[in-house]
Amino acid sequence: MNILITGATGFVGRHLVNEFRKVHSLHILCRSEKSLEELNLPGFLMTDDIYALAAYIKENNIEGVVHLASLYLASHTADQIKDLILSNVFLGTAILEAASRAGTVRWFLNTGSIWQNYMVEGNAYNPVNLYAATKQSFIDIAKYYVETSKIRFCTLKLCDTYGPDDTRKKILKLFKDCSESGELLKMSPGNQLLDILYISDVVDGFRQLVDMLASDDEIEEQYVLSSENQISLKKLASVFEEVSQTKLNIEWGARNYREREVMVPWKGPVLKNWKAKISLREGIELFLHS
Amino acid sequence: MNILITGATGFVGRHLVNEFRKVHSLHILCRSEKSLEELNLPGFLMTDDIYALAAYIKENNIEGVVHLASLYLASHTADQIKDLILSNVFLGTAILEAASRAGTVRWFLNTGSIWQNYMVEGNAYNPVNLYAATKQSFIDIAKYYVETSKIRFCTLKLCDTYGPDDTRKKILKLFKDCSESGELLKMSPGNQLLDILYISDVVDGFRQLVDMLASDDEIEEQYVLSSENQISLKKLASVFEEVSQTKLNIEWGARNYREREVMVPWKGPVLKNWKAKISLREGIELFLHS
Repeated sequence: MNILITGATGFVGRHLVNEFRKVHSLHILCRSEKSLEELNLPGFLMTDDIYALAAYIKENNIEGVVHLASLYLASHTADQIKDLILSNVFLGTAILEAASRAGTVRWFLNTGSIWQNYMVEGNAYNPVNLYAATKQSFIDIAKYYVETSKIRFCTLKLCDTYGPDDTRKKILKLFKDCSESGELLKMSPGNQLLDILYISDVVDGFRQLVDMLASDDEIEEQYVLSSENQISLKKLASVFEEVSQTKLNIEWGARNYREREVMVPWKGPVLKNWKAKISLREGIELFLHS
Repeated sequence: MNILITGATGFVGRHLVNEFRKVHSLHILCRSEKSLEELNLPGFLMTDDIYALAAYIKENNIEGVVHLASLYLASHTADQIKDLILSNVFLGTAILEAASRAGTVRWFLNTGSIWQNYMVEGNAYNPVNLYAATKQSFIDIAKYYVETSKIRFCTLKLCDTYGPDDTRKKILKLFKDCSESGELLKMSPGNQLLDILYISDVVDGFRQLVDMLASDDEIEEQYVLSSENQISLKKLASVFEEVSQTKLNIEWGARNYREREVMVPWKGPVLKNWKAKISLREGIELFLHS
């Protein structure tokens, strides 16, 4: 299939592109020539010109879109709000408009976050932060295109992810750095539960949902990729110590939980016929030796 | 109360300001010095500087916001999408962020549209057009501020409105112009039902909802202002002819219905203890003699 990918230079994006390029013809939507060169793939440099994007999609007979690009902010400042809305609401809308005009696109795989659901019970929307709110906000705009075009739209909500080549400041990266430097790590009390997936399992989930979208199978509006094994931050640290055979110098309780800390992650409808294959220990092993 | 109003120079805005200024201390959020001069009210010229708006809100001890500003487009072109999102999503978010930072604001009255609900049955969201989708999208973002601040938030969904000093190209204005010029008016078959309210009734609804928000009464997330008397476009033309004692030169069926024409407007939960006082005949009379 001819697939357009956004966010291809991000953590999930790079791993996904590496797998998808083996079987699909990929096109990248990005903001810099450099990204296209690095990935060695054809693509389109995004501007505000939606007509030009529509022409590119049509010319290249793009059948599906994997929309990974987003501006992630755990917490925001007032001057980041415009960027947050442009990145997480406008960009996706522009792509849907272009896709709808081009007429070639049959499906759109949107990436969401389990942080769109702060409450553990039920499926009610309740955003952990403004980032999650903008993600939900885009889904409502997408509804217009679902109603007025033939594009199948589905949101895949991700929990935490980890793996090699992660430039994000995520917890396992922090543990790794501190285990090497011996530096003191000041943490919250550490009783919040985490739902964390190794990247190859995440890419597997995307692959499966793409297949479902490209088929005529019925699909739900959203699915979740979840380890289904929630683990406390404290326990994660001890598993890390065991696997890495190092000792982390952590001061638990030196910080407060953050406002709206997610103590128990939401468990949504997990993608059918998909299951995480890499256990936490295996994943940490792979992460450490990458 | 000290109330901040957006969209004060629009049709509903001007009528609302005329009434509200009698009992409240009004502040206007707008984009031009000229609007402030015309309205002869204090206000703040909107930029992207949310901190400055927060300071203004705090200094003036603003207690409530009536958010009327929106970019209305019955249908959109691709190059209008960014403006649509900036006007209908970003502006409201910026105000909520500023209000939340200022700490003085207790309520936020958001204006919606019955076009957020294309389907007649139930309350499920289904936008008639992209404009309506952006209105819904903002409500998702507002949810974040509802959860993280003390601000009470409510959306008042409006049906069609009419009255004196309307610069919008609305149907009764068109009838009035054509009845004067005798010009041929090419219309759709005209069987779509309309829900149309005279402006004083609309302002009444806003006044009542502001009182509810300022009190400690429980409120729903949304209310509708509806005439509760849906009338077909064809019938509206004949009522207009009767009241104006003119003959409209209309060719019914000369045009197709527009895509996603609303044939039967949504009937949502009407604002409690409010009822339209001006009948359609009285309203048209007032409209014609204004």
